[in-house]
Amino acid sequence: MEPPGHHALEPTADAMREMASAAAEFAVRFIEALPDAPASDVEGFEALVDRLREPSPEAGSDLAPLLDLLGQGAAKGFTTAGPGYRAYVPGGGLFAAAVADFLANAINKFVGVWQTAPALVQMEATAIRWLCDQFDYPPEARGILTSGGSMANFTAIVSARRALLPEDFVQGTLYVSDQAHLSVLKAAVLAGFPQRNVRWVATTPELRMDLDALARMIRDDREMGLLPFCVVVSAGTTNTGAVDPIGDAVALAHGEGMWVHVDGAYGGFFQITERGRRLFEGISEADSITLDPHKAMFLPYGTGSLLVRDGSKLRAAHMVGGDYLQDLAPEDEIPNFTDYSPELSRDFRGLRVWLPIKLHGLRAFRDALDEKLDLARLLDERLRTLPGLDLPWQPELTVVPFRLATANGNVDPDELNREFLHRINASKRVFLSSTSIGGRFILRACIVSHRTHRDRVEEAAGIVARAARELTD
Amino acid sequence: MEPPGHHALEPTADAMREMASAAAEFAVRFIEALPDAPASDVEGFEALVDRLREPSPEAGSDLAPLLDLLGQGAAKGFTTAGPGYRAYVPGGGLFAAAVADFLANAINKFVGVWQTAPALVQMEATAIRWLCDQFDYPPEARGILTSGGSMANFTAIVSARRALLPEDFVQGTLYVSDQAHLSVLKAAVLAGFPQRNVRWVATTPELRMDLDALARMIRDDREMGLLPFCVVVSAGTTNTGAVDPIGDAVALAHGEGMWVHVDGAYGGFFQITERGRRLFEGISEADSITLDPHKAMFLPYGTGSLLVRDGSKLRAAHMVGGDYLQDLAPEDEIPNFTDYSPELSRDFRGLRVWLPIKLHGLRAFRDALDEKLDLARLLDERLRTLPGLDLPWQPELTVVPFRLATANGNVDPDELNREFLHRINASKRVFLSSTSIGGRFILRACIVSHRTHRDRVEEAAGIVARAARELTD
Repeated sequence: MEPPGHHALEPTADAMREMASAAAEFAVRFIEALPDAPASDVEGFEALVDRLREPSPEAGSDLAPLLDLLGQGAAKGFTTAGPGYRAYVPGGGLFAAAVADFLANAINKFVGVWQTAPALVQMEATAIRWLCDQFDYPPEARGILTSGGSMANFTAIVSARRALLPEDFVQGTLYVSDQAHLSVLKAAVLAGFPQRNVRWVATTPELRMDLDALARMIRDDREMGLLPFCVVVSAGTTNTGAVDPIGDAVALAHGEGMWVHVDGAYGGFFQITERGRRLFEGISEADSITLDPHKAMFLPYGTGSLLVRDGSKLRAAHMVGGDYLQDLAPEDEIPNFTDYSPELSRDFRGLRVWLPIKLHGLRAFRDALDEKLDLARLLDERLRTLPGLDLPWQPELTVVPFRLATANGNVDPDELNREFLHRINASKRVFLSSTSIGGRFILRACIVSHRTHRDRVEEAAGIVARAARELTD
Repeated sequence: MEPPGHHALEPTADAMREMASAAAEFAVRFIEALPDAPASDVEGFEALVDRLREPSPEAGSDLAPLLDLLGQGAAKGFTTAGPGYRAYVPGGGLFAAAVADFLANAINKFVGVWQTAPALVQMEATAIRWLCDQFDYPPEARGILTSGGSMANFTAIVSARRALLPEDFVQGTLYVSDQAHLSVLKAAVLAGFPQRNVRWVATTPELRMDLDALARMIRDDREMGLLPFCVVVSAGTTNTGAVDPIGDAVALAHGEGMWVHVDGAYGGFFQITERGRRLFEGISEADSITLDPHKAMFLPYGTGSLLVRDGSKLRAAHMVGGDYLQDLAPEDEIPNFTDYSPELSRDFRGLRVWLPIKLHGLRAFRDALDEKLDLARLLDERLRTLPGLDLPWQPELTVVPFRLATANGNVDPDELNREFLHRINASKRVFLSSTSIGGRFILRACIVSHRTHRDRVEEAAGIVARAARELTD
């Protein structure tokens, strides 16, 4: 045995208790301070970053100064876990999931194949089945938990490629709307497609995929000898939360023998609400769905998922055997996740999904998501009352896109709106991001965190109103 | 705010403290019990698995029964975190890493781009630099932390493909020894190559890649119009720990304009020991290296890494832009990890590497790995004294491969050795796995866990001796 003490690789039980207790106190204080923390604080990080650029230490250190350094580091940047953060897609970060990950790491079981930890693999399979159930996916559906939406979209594209295209697939083309997330493009490139094989389909004024345009592109591409094989639709774009006409896209694509993948990384989990279920009509016929529990399920970053309606296709795309695994029983009732995934060894993500759902119950998630839908409508209504503000789209989910209209022809509208965003974020009570739609600079507030409630949305509306007045008076 | 109480998505501070404390107690007791826990216990899990097959709960639950269920689940399967586990490649699971993950999840910062959390991104970049330093990689080297070796190997192959092959890369071929890990084959298939484009190079009697055979294959393939672009060598195979002649392979492959990737998922981290550094001579000239900190750095499953000597090639392979990220500053001194990786959102893995190295110091890891090298030699020596045992290879790292030789021609040698493995594992004090080499069933003991010390290796030698006696008497 190594000598006792908390520097030893295996600390004593008391040292472990002390470490855990210090970490818990750090975490609780961090979370308690979130409502008052600046929504972003990016200034003056350089000295800290310099201090962190050091050679690897030969000797160990006490935990306290390391926690102190972590605290200083965590204070810099965007307060992604706080109630004011409404940029990109907020992650929240349920405390129960942090506890789950601690437990998963402490017990450190391998869950890539079922035999090494049958009950824990079943826990993960159950959590995935719960996700499938929300979409009325049949019993033969299978899924995986991934590190996030990018890997889920990648796995979907590889599955479609392996199911539908010849070995030399360079003529295969896939279709996304011009509002789709760049992870689809990146996934396609990593999966081996030339970048131009990702075809950007025009959108309607509501920023939904124009299915007539899609049908024309598919026809034209076929005439040119290309091999259309996959349509990727959004269950809520990152830009504005626009929902593509999923059911009609499925009908069209299936008529063409193509795979339909739904990118629901941001929005998909709204399916558990009545309003979401209506918006996503037809989704249960889609071939695969990306969901990011680290977004609308409020989990910490690092939890995506891919659900595939016909699980055998996911498996056929990913199963490769090896001699050194010869002792393991073949899959029976419990899945060998590695046969469904690009990963072999990886973290036990299932606990991070299973434990919060068991602890809080699905109703708590549904209520919280309904609250977010209401808050987005509230913010949209408030902003519509402000003079000079342009809200070109109604929020379908929980993104509220807006910009300042310019009466004054001498002002560059994008410059003005950049300044608008800057002034809003300078409040440090809310942090928004922007995007570009049709070449126009658009601000967006994305309401997702379980920590964002009505008070902070009303406060944000006031901050936006003040910044608008300053810039238009 | 939601009502207080630990079922609320955001618990009160006291409820969080209670949850953390219950989890810590669970973890400490689990780890304390590891030395006496059966090395594997796969029987009777079915009832538990059945119980876990349930619909999603609408209402929540208390934490205590969930921890109880987790405890029952964690008791079934292989005790991967325990001192007796020597199958596949053990993971260990440092307590400090579990604490780090808890903290990372509680603060829930996004580390895919530097601006959202500059100091934490630097923490991760520093941890990666520490890994690069071990291999004398130059300042322009870059790396990523992945979920494991499979994703690291995949990313290496995509990087080599994008750096060296034309758009239609179906003629591209890559070369691995017949002892290589199947994740290389799987990664190549996911990256778009037909399975046959992975060329299996014969090995020498020491199970190292035969470089004459490699040179011949490359020449023959070129003559057939194929495009050899990548050689994957092993810094310790999973099967036996055999180390390919890395320096000579690099010279050969670079002479051919090819990329050399070193799969050091299991063995690469032994580089921090003097013996490892000697074995891996020439590795600092390799184009990329996979390392799994969740193996020889004793971290929990879920921490792999890829280091790339010329970081710009890793970046060129993975960088794709997007409008909705337009507010973010371009990479300056701190990396935007998403530009180097298939992932965008994902967990903050850097803390899990940085904190244990800072807390324990690198020397603690070096000493522990030297201990493992000594233990493998000890086990090899002990087993060589046993009559009837055949040890065809000297351990180069910490895998000890062995089998029972059969004097009796009526006994199927593979059947006999399967029974041999069964009897050893039935002890429940040690758990080994097997592999197939040259068509022969071979047992292997892989000594990696930070919890495995001399007492358990001597005990295992005794268990093997007893089983051998039973089967040969």
